[in-house]
Amino acid sequence: MKSVRKAAAIGGGLIGGGWVARCVLAGVDVDVFDPDPEAERKVAALMANAERAMARLWQGQALGNRGQLRFVSSIAEAVEGADLIQESTPERLDIKKKVHAEIGASAEAEAVIGSSTSGLLPSDFQVDSDRADRVMVAHPYNPVYLLPVVEIVGGARTSDAAIARAMEAYADIGMKPVHIRKEIDAFVGDRLLEAMWRESLWLIKDGVATAETIDDVVRYGLGMRYAQMGQFMTYRLGGGEAGMRHFLEQFGPSLKWPWTKLMDVPEWDDQLIDMIAEQSDAQAKGLSVKELEQIRDNNLVDFLKVLHRNDWGAGALLRNPAAASLKDGANTLPDGDVLKTFDGMVDPDWTDYNGHMTEFRYLDVFSTSTDELLVWIGGGPAYASSGASWYTIETHIRHLDEVAAGKPIRVETQLVDHDEKRLHLFHRMIGVEKENLLATGEHMLMHVDMKAGRGSPMPAEMKAALDIVAERQRDMPRPDAAGARIGIRRKG
Amino acid sequence: MKSVRKAAAIGGGLIGGGWVARCVLAGVDVDVFDPDPEAERKVAALMANAERAMARLWQGQALGNRGQLRFVSSIAEAVEGADLIQESTPERLDIKKKVHAEIGASAEAEAVIGSSTSGLLPSDFQVDSDRADRVMVAHPYNPVYLLPVVEIVGGARTSDAAIARAMEAYADIGMKPVHIRKEIDAFVGDRLLEAMWRESLWLIKDGVATAETIDDVVRYGLGMRYAQMGQFMTYRLGGGEAGMRHFLEQFGPSLKWPWTKLMDVPEWDDQLIDMIAEQSDAQAKGLSVKELEQIRDNNLVDFLKVLHRNDWGAGALLRNPAAASLKDGANTLPDGDVLKTFDGMVDPDWTDYNGHMTEFRYLDVFSTSTDELLVWIGGGPAYASSGASWYTIETHIRHLDEVAAGKPIRVETQLVDHDEKRLHLFHRMIGVEKENLLATGEHMLMHVDMKAGRGSPMPAEMKAALDIVAERQRDMPRPDAAGARIGIRRKG
Repeated sequence: MKSVRKAAAIGGGLIGGGWVARCVLAGVDVDVFDPDPEAERKVAALMANAERAMARLWQGQALGNRGQLRFVSSIAEAVEGADLIQESTPERLDIKKKVHAEIGASAEAEAVIGSSTSGLLPSDFQVDSDRADRVMVAHPYNPVYLLPVVEIVGGARTSDAAIARAMEAYADIGMKPVHIRKEIDAFVGDRLLEAMWRESLWLIKDGVATAETIDDVVRYGLGMRYAQMGQFMTYRLGGGEAGMRHFLEQFGPSLKWPWTKLMDVPEWDDQLIDMIAEQSDAQAKGLSVKELEQIRDNNLVDFLKVLHRNDWGAGALLRNPAAASLKDGANTLPDGDVLKTFDGMVDPDWTDYNGHMTEFRYLDVFSTSTDELLVWIGGGPAYASSGASWYTIETHIRHLDEVAAGKPIRVETQLVDHDEKRLHLFHRMIGVEKENLLATGEHMLMHVDMKAGRGSPMPAEMKAALDIVAERQRDMPRPDAAGARIGIRRKG
Repeated sequence: MKSVRKAAAIGGGLIGGGWVARCVLAGVDVDVFDPDPEAERKVAALMANAERAMARLWQGQALGNRGQLRFVSSIAEAVEGADLIQESTPERLDIKKKVHAEIGASAEAEAVIGSSTSGLLPSDFQVDSDRADRVMVAHPYNPVYLLPVVEIVGGARTSDAAIARAMEAYADIGMKPVHIRKEIDAFVGDRLLEAMWRESLWLIKDGVATAETIDDVVRYGLGMRYAQMGQFMTYRLGGGEAGMRHFLEQFGPSLKWPWTKLMDVPEWDDQLIDMIAEQSDAQAKGLSVKELEQIRDNNLVDFLKVLHRNDWGAGALLRNPAAASLKDGANTLPDGDVLKTFDGMVDPDWTDYNGHMTEFRYLDVFSTSTDELLVWIGGGPAYASSGASWYTIETHIRHLDEVAAGKPIRVETQLVDHDEKRLHLFHRMIGVEKENLLATGEHMLMHVDMKAGRGSPMPAEMKAALDIVAERQRDMPRPDAAGARIGIRRKG
């Protein structure tokens, strides 16, 4: 059960809009206030990016309920009844102080009031708020709908209870809140970024390396480690079995070496700005920011998928809304005789060197469809923990037509036959745009007692659910292709 | 055609051994010299890690020819005839000077002589070498067999020709060489690492954050961006459509803010070492370095797979040795009547919530087997560019037994039938340890003229290759299951 039902977004730019998208897709209603007349368009663009990313992340699995998105005309209206209030206004103390005074005048006593600021201090901007005890920094990273970390920093008047509640509330929308113990400028992440940034500026200014070279050193090397282990854990591995202390004792002396120019800041003049802007343009090789954003999001989603499968880091936080609903035991057959068991698109990852959907992805889709039906009859992932499960024992796929990457597809499922232990399914994969039959998948499944390792009768209520499906689909003709043999048929 | 045939590794520790593994798996012969009596054991452990990673990366596809690995008893013996000489000795100038003098006495005139040093300058250690013009820094990142970046830094006496040759030679073993234009301490990557490291030490010393918090901020946030775009490209996206110059103009002033404590270095005393070592132990939650290495390698391999599929960054560099051999046109049928078309293991990624191999992965394996046979008859990926290709039109899979993650499997393929346009294959998936039949895959393929979008006769030489397979397999009985129907069979 989610502890955040309604959120308020004060400011809907790149960061504010990212918050909106994260909340809506996590099933939280969001009221947005932003005086910018372009705000609706900007938020819509971010929502589209986020939806695309989620579709890729959960490939054809239902995304759970979305929250309602509303644009409202005042801060008071937005924050009314909100459990979570996120302020993402420009980085000016005068603006933030005023906005927090206004938020405080209408906020619920138990609301979390987080600011997305990347540098201002909560003690400074909470002063005029009637709810100063609930005001804190909650600093995310772009894109907010994909990167989970959020730095929580309290100010002089922030209560411990508010911090504790924030740790819960942000986790509830799929994030990784980290509590920074002391209120310092730029918190943790931006200080690390700033350190690397300063060093990089010197490298460019001194003609040692270009923006592209520096980025290459990062993305072909140390960045691949940072994405999963950070720096201390990575160094721990550098120490080998001798351990972290050994590593530190070895590494320590180099602190005294003149390795960095951090003691100084380069002059921020037009010449340096020109140099970096030109190098950055060269590096982008004509890709627009919009194109780069898509590339970034695809890579981030795929990293998340990897880490989800490996149950590590940012991926270990992910909660598949479809899987979550299974655990909630919402195992009920949808109405009607046509069972739509898959509703998604051909993921661009699924295409092969011919530009077609890769062979095994047809079975991936059909398996997802089978799993969906199993969930409906109470035989999904949660059921396996009872010691019994459904095993596929045979599959027959026919490829009938082609479909391109990104195109919508659905699967309709027919129950051809069943008895106490067995299930004979026939899936039809349909291209939504042309309503053409792309492929069929015919499957025989066995209900298995996993301990005994052999077929066993399914529970009566599961059988009853299948009987209902069979009854509803009584008038559907048996598919011509069901039970067909494979072979070269020769004339004469 | 590879331009590196033989490499010499002088030093076989964590970094030297990583080089050895990268070279051997890239098909390069390596002679190792390391006076440490433990060197053979250490290199073997790194080779095992690297082989495991490559098996995961290329899932059941042939890994191409490995290089020969030899341990030799002198530097002279190791470097004789080597195109690439990699020195990975301790970070002491006196040692490196002596070793480079010895290498220079026996090295080929055209050899690349790279040092893995992360801080010493080539001008300093090349002085006593007879081949000083070939000596340079070639600084990699751990693990060398997975992370591709290598920083190339010449010294006062290094020739331009040697640098140019190094850029070619390291790319040839799958790396991303980046040329650092000026010879400065710590080059580029270690300066960036050092900048973040110093800032982190202050954060810990001042009690702002723990090692775990800092790593969390990195791996749940900024590190996910670094793994694919580095910092300049990431900031470019932060600027939105207004562009990099706009971003720089906005960001610039913060350089003057007191965001970092980089102007100072924390005292490196026992108290700080204790603090970090204890926090690092807590963060590791009992996982050994060996376990963490496996987690790291799994994640890195999976990131590489993602980036390979997305044709981006570190993944865009990857060359599948199997795919490379296709392009070379090495399309020949192996000898014998038994066609082994898959030889790999059940990737741990392939298991589902029951702990079994995921349904669609059986088809993944069988498709790989089909592709392998197609390559042998000249109908693989390279053939598709001719405008014709083989399409699978039907598939019948039977699941007969289970197999656990990590276990070796192979597939044997029987040509059941073929005519001018069609191919009827029967694959048997076999568990290697128990020689048990796990599954069968029966496939009908059609030779398709892709422009016309319909079946067309295959070229005569392809048909001839299939005729040879049919002739060799003439005495194999037709599989009982071939052409079997799916359905619930009832008694009586």
